[in-house]
Amino acid sequence: MSQALKNESLSAIFAELDKSFDDMKSWRRYMHQHPELSFEEVHTAKYIEEKLVSFGLEVQTKIGGNGIVATLKGYQPGKTIALRADFDALPIEDEKDVPYKSTKPGVMHACGHDGHTSALLGTARTLSKYREKIKGTILFVFQPAEETPPGGAKFMIEEGILEGVDYVFGAHLASDIPLGKVAVGEGYQMAAVDKIEITIKGRGGHGARPHQTVDSLVIGSSVVEGLQKIVSRSIDPLKSAVVTIGVFHAGSAFNVIPDTAKIEGTVRTFDEDVRDQVEAEINSIVKGITSAYHANYEIDYLRGYPALYNHKEETDVARGLFSEVFTEQNVIEKTPTMGAEDFAYFLKEKPGTFFNVGSQNEDEATHYPHHHPRFDFDERALVNISKSFVKIVSHYLF
Amino acid sequence: MSQALKNESLSAIFAELDKSFDDMKSWRRYMHQHPELSFEEVHTAKYIEEKLVSFGLEVQTKIGGNGIVATLKGYQPGKTIALRADFDALPIEDEKDVPYKSTKPGVMHACGHDGHTSALLGTARTLSKYREKIKGTILFVFQPAEETPPGGAKFMIEEGILEGVDYVFGAHLASDIPLGKVAVGEGYQMAAVDKIEITIKGRGGHGARPHQTVDSLVIGSSVVEGLQKIVSRSIDPLKSAVVTIGVFHAGSAFNVIPDTAKIEGTVRTFDEDVRDQVEAEINSIVKGITSAYHANYEIDYLRGYPALYNHKEETDVARGLFSEVFTEQNVIEKTPTMGAEDFAYFLKEKPGTFFNVGSQNEDEATHYPHHHPRFDFDERALVNISKSFVKIVSHYLF
Amino acid sequence: MSQALKNESLSAIFAELDKSFDDMKSWRRYMHQHPELSFEEVHTAKYIEEKLVSFGLEVQTKIGGNGIVATLKGYQPGKTIALRADFDALPIEDEKDVPYKSTKPGVMHACGHDGHTSALLGTARTLSKYREKIKGTILFVFQPAEETPPGGAKFMIEEGILEGVDYVFGAHLASDIPLGKVAVGEGYQMAAVDKIEITIKGRGGHGARPHQTVDSLVIGSSVVEGLQKIVSRSIDPLKSAVVTIGVFHAGSAFNVIPDTAKIEGTVRTFDEDVRDQVEAEINSIVKGITSAYHANYEIDYLRGYPALYNHKEETDVARGLFSEVFTEQNVIEKTPTMGAEDFAYFLKEKPGTFFNVGSQNEDEATHYPHHHPRFDFDERALVNISKSFVKIVSHYLF
Amino acid sequence: MSQALKNESLSAIFAELDKSFDDMKSWRRYMHQHPELSFEEVHTAKYIEEKLVSFGLEVQTKIGGNGIVATLKGYQPGKTIALRADFDALPIEDEKDVPYKSTKPGVMHACGHDGHTSALLGTARTLSKYREKIKGTILFVFQPAEETPPGGAKFMIEEGILEGVDYVFGAHLASDIPLGKVAVGEGYQMAAVDKIEITIKGRGGHGARPHQTVDSLVIGSSVVEGLQKIVSRSIDPLKSAVVTIGVFHAGSAFNVIPDTAKIEGTVRTFDEDVRDQVEAEINSIVKGITSAYHANYEIDYLRGYPALYNHKEETDVARGLFSEVFTEQNVIEKTPTMGAEDFAYFLKEKPGTFFNVGSQNEDEATHYPHHHPRFDFDERALVNISKSFVKIVSHYLF
Repeated sequence: MSQALKNESLSAIFAELDKSFDDMKSWRRYMHQHPELSFEEVHTAKYIEEKLVSFGLEVQTKIGGNGIVATLKGYQPGKTIALRADFDALPIEDEKDVPYKSTKPGVMHACGHDGHTSALLGTARTLSKYREKIKGTILFVFQPAEETPPGGAKFMIEEGILEGVDYVFGAHLASDIPLGKVAVGEGYQMAAVDKIEITIKGRGGHGARPHQTVDSLVIGSSVVEGLQKIVSRSIDPLKSAVVTIGVFHAGSAFNVIPDTAKIEGTVRTFDEDVRDQVEAEINSIVKGITSAYHANYEIDYLRGYPALYNHKEETDVARGLFSEVFTEQNVIEKTPTMGAEDFAYFLKEKPGTFFNVGSQNEDEATHYPHHHPRFDFDERALVNISKSFVKIVSHYLF
Repeated sequence: MSQALKNESLSAIFAELDKSFDDMKSWRRYMHQHPELSFEEVHTAKYIEEKLVSFGLEVQTKIGGNGIVATLKGYQPGKTIALRADFDALPIEDEKDVPYKSTKPGVMHACGHDGHTSALLGTARTLSKYREKIKGTILFVFQPAEETPPGGAKFMIEEGILEGVDYVFGAHLASDIPLGKVAVGEGYQMAAVDKIEITIKGRGGHGARPHQTVDSLVIGSSVVEGLQKIVSRSIDPLKSAVVTIGVFHAGSAFNVIPDTAKIEGTVRTFDEDVRDQVEAEINSIVKGITSAYHANYEIDYLRGYPALYNHKEETDVARGLFSEVFTEQNVIEKTPTMGAEDFAYFLKEKPGTFFNVGSQNEDEATHYPHHHPRFDFDERALVNISKSFVKIVSHYLF
Repeated sequence: MSQALKNESLSAIFAELDKSFDDMKSWRRYMHQHPELSFEEVHTAKYIEEKLVSFGLEVQTKIGGNGIVATLKGYQPGKTIALRADFDALPIEDEKDVPYKSTKPGVMHACGHDGHTSALLGTARTLSKYREKIKGTILFVFQPAEETPPGGAKFMIEEGILEGVDYVFGAHLASDIPLGKVAVGEGYQMAAVDKIEITIKGRGGHGARPHQTVDSLVIGSSVVEGLQKIVSRSIDPLKSAVVTIGVFHAGSAFNVIPDTAKIEGTVRTFDEDVRDQVEAEINSIVKGITSAYHANYEIDYLRGYPALYNHKEETDVARGLFSEVFTEQNVIEKTPTMGAEDFAYFLKEKPGTFFNVGSQNEDEATHYPHHHPRFDFDERALVNISKSFVKIVSHYLF
Repeated sequence: MSQALKNESLSAIFAELDKSFDDMKSWRRYMHQHPELSFEEVHTAKYIEEKLVSFGLEVQTKIGGNGIVATLKGYQPGKTIALRADFDALPIEDEKDVPYKSTKPGVMHACGHDGHTSALLGTARTLSKYREKIKGTILFVFQPAEETPPGGAKFMIEEGILEGVDYVFGAHLASDIPLGKVAVGEGYQMAAVDKIEITIKGRGGHGARPHQTVDSLVIGSSVVEGLQKIVSRSIDPLKSAVVTIGVFHAGSAFNVIPDTAKIEGTVRTFDEDVRDQVEAEINSIVKGITSAYHANYEIDYLRGYPALYNHKEETDVARGLFSEVFTEQNVIEKTPTMGAEDFAYFLKEKPGTFFNVGSQNEDEATHYPHHHPRFDFDERALVNISKSFVKIVSHYLF
């Protein structure tokens, strides 16, 4: 299609997306009122399925759990693009005072996944009306369980949903970016997330007779101290790594030396070799320090999501496309964080990029960080997600 | 009374104590079957009171809680001696398979206090028949709540029971000493017992962003490391001190840096100045290390029982007297331990000594350490306690 | 000048530079045989001065120490560009077996500064013959004392040498880059380098009586442990920082607790706010830990060279220019290191870039790392430095 | 000999000792002016030898180095008693302002060994006149090199000087005990003294690239921290142990991570099993911690003097005898210290006791601690040492 034609089509589609705003908002609010935790999103999956079926799309359900894929085949052959939204909620009590507040105690869409899904539904409905313009195939991937490792992405991919796919794209609302802006960036953008579980096994005893014990609590403290040296000494200072211990539980009586100390933590890295190195150092430190003091140990090092890597070429493409949609000054540089996102699995398999869409306005209610009990967003961002996806589709498939 | 007369009287009394064995055993077994936790010994107190009243003694009850004092006034004036037994049980499930096993789930006389009380009851019954030989007064002190600080001793003494008392004596069964032996020793024999409660107050946050937090868990580990230097560096190596941390609780999610770390421990010392020094060092270390890393803290240093100090003169007297009763070779040297005993409060007020009476025989059942779920003792030791008390009484009051 | 004319001129100049190779080599070898330590480069300065005067340039000497600036004014007015080379040597024993080996025991040009200077001399001689083509001014800056903070750059700049300068450029030989390649990169490329000097002041005493001392050695060890947490906990994992302790000296007799422990180290950072934060954390940790254990302390935090920041625009210009000289594939991306370079002071004042010029060939002698006693380089790299400088000059001033 | 006769003889001898005061003082002052370091006491040995020969005693020299033994055989057979004095000086600059100040720069009798030797010489001279009263043999043992392990005692004993000896006695001046008093005590009175030498072997490198190194300095700090836990956790709190690190040397340049860290220290214990345990724990901790961080290590654990153990029976005898000489109230209880004394080797071989003789008067000059540059003592204490020795001899041999 000529650029002029493309632009004409896009104008029409964008106009239609603008008109879809009220629908997207109401879908989002429905999901917001009925949040479901990771791996339990049965009702939400049904809701999505019904919508997709009503748009006349070919829908597969229960993929790798509660996953759904809707396929839109264009009239002409071409590339295949997967667009992905996630739809699980968090174990957080909704503290907002809005009509669409969560109706489920202790569960809340506090990260914006309701928005991602609503925006992708809107995108799907609109694009489904333009099959004749599409050369190739679009997969609308609705993924459950993003919040909780091992996550839903892995299982959906293992079911083969990316076979034949050429590019993958995903978007995330961002409460720290103003509405109207999008953030794009190449390379490692989010960290690999691993979990460490360490048990120090000493020999408990009376607090007055430490010499008859192997003091797991003190040894555990030494291990925590020792682990600090991984980042301070063993990792290339030009690379990033975090070793955080979040849990230290030992003992239940002030005057009894406990048998065991239980330590849990997380490791965040970008490079796979740094990730391997941190794991190896943890093993060495725990082994060495426990042996110094005659204790035994167990370590489980559980690898979670890999680092999210945005491919240069597709990122550059997206940057250019978004400049056309939102103007150049509204396309800002995405900065890496040590947070995690299981869209990383998609990007390990296929080229693509994961970008942020601003959802903050002048109202303070839209400024809360993600995962906050009062998190909310300017719903006009849903249209911006949709336009971003459509623009990408137009580039590759029109 | 001439020594010859004294000996004659003693022979008669000892014969009577030997005959009391079955009664003492049955009293002990009754109490063993009906154990009561510290500060809850209502039924046991009633049982003791009824026995003492039946012996014709003047009995005061509810002293400083469930405490009881029976007074035996001799026909002639003289010194006043207090003999003390404790009668609370422990929160331990009785695992013995004997007819007199505890009938109360999770509560057990696992330290021998039932024996102490039974032996003192036997002593009281017998001595009450020899008033005409006694020059002075005997207080039979039945003390509750020895196992649980602040303990029962303190409150009974605050009620004034030691006013006018010249000497105090107490005995403890010892499963690590053979039946027939007693252990006597001067000076510090048991430790002062204090409790430390420390809260490290940081600022929690996401495990991936340690730089935005004050990591209470890591700081808590540094504090535990730091506390090791009190004993290794600050305390005179010729003096004894223990600083044990029994509890370290921080965090509940592996990937969240916790706001606070909760640390609890115990301090054991003999000398008061060492005790003061340890407390001061703990305060200095916690203050210094938390300030190093921008955290706040709270410390509660709760003083428990003081160190138990056996007075030289009365200990030497007892050693001599016991040699006469049990032969010289059966009187062994008591060795200090870092354990605690609230008879220490009695010995802070009045001269006296606290001694151990062997209760171990060839049967393995009598070898378990005190506080073990299978703890038991050779009940003939009850008669030995009684004879020890009577011999002391004869020395001072006959 | 038209691009065609520029290219014509450049071809002539490059040809002349090629012919200068033997001279540059001999100059370099002379300086290599007569190395002088930082701040002591009197003879070398004289040598440089004589050469510059012989080229007919206006020469200023003793600027901020042994610094020299030669000025080349073009026939027409225009911008002013400063090109810089350093010329001090290192306290290293030359272990090479070559005719031009250092004649001064324990002093050696082990970093390539002799090469930098020789190349800039060659550049100056050649350009001095093309005044008529130059619109503007070139400053040839010969800087002493790069190896030893506070360095020579600072003092030369304080003397005003950069007044009126528009751009600054500097080059460094690189033994890890093949001859023929140059490395260019924007942003922070080398770290700020600071020095820490800490004295822990305890109270010494007999090793058998630690309780009468304040053990500076143990406290010093705790401080070293504590400092690890700056990088592991306090610094944004997406930013770079190094805190290294290189010296720990305490005590001289195995059985005497020393009064003081002397600790020295280095801090490496890119961002100024990270640098400030590290300094603040060191202060807080040393203060907190020493106070925990009743010691006093002194800290000197000596700020050395700032981070070297290559400006984007000039770096992009240089990248483009070098592609023309060496072909695009021979212009590689410079990767940041935590090493230091006082050309950073020039780049704090004026826009410009600092680039690396490959000096490694198939001969192992050219593979040793800089500062190695056998360090050497392929001298043809001198011509490459000169061509790089000339190409830059042609861009801005022809 | 009857007690009456003994007393008569003693009175005569004591009178003669009193008269010897001026001689003892002048001998002591001569030695004080001519101090010699451990293992270098050639001149002092000659001086002692000449005196002993002049007393008509059988003298053996160069025993186990500079050691001397003079033998006094009584007219009748009997037990053999060894009396010992040491005679080496210290590497301390004499800061006293007295006529008998050291004439040798940097060397000083700052511990009182000159006094011990002078007193034993006086004892020998006087007793040599009373052979007819003596049943048995007296060995006057003059031992060099007490201050410096491995010490002189070990070598003299290896030469067989204690063969046939029944009892050994030694005395030490004490500047913290008033003149006229002696201190006596049984059991462990001085500690075993061992030396630790640890080398942590890492892999040095540039301070800016810790990840390419194995940081021996940081690992050494962790080892020092780890060693604190031996005393705080592994040793019975009722027993004594000291682990002191006196030397920590690592690195020479602030920005270079050193290859090795050198750590030296001392261990002080009483019980042999505690000594073994400390050595084992040091090995375990150094091995474990170095392995945690990929370093190697070397440990030398050098056993020095054993703990000094005063035998109960001979100590009780001495206590009784000294009460007769100095009155009961002037015989005080010796308190243990973690200091060392190689007379311990004598007491490992033969029964006996080591006692302190007060040398402090109202003059501040006599109050300085031993090893202080201004150390001095009331010389009348020399007579008290002699009387103590003579009284002991009279008990066993008269």
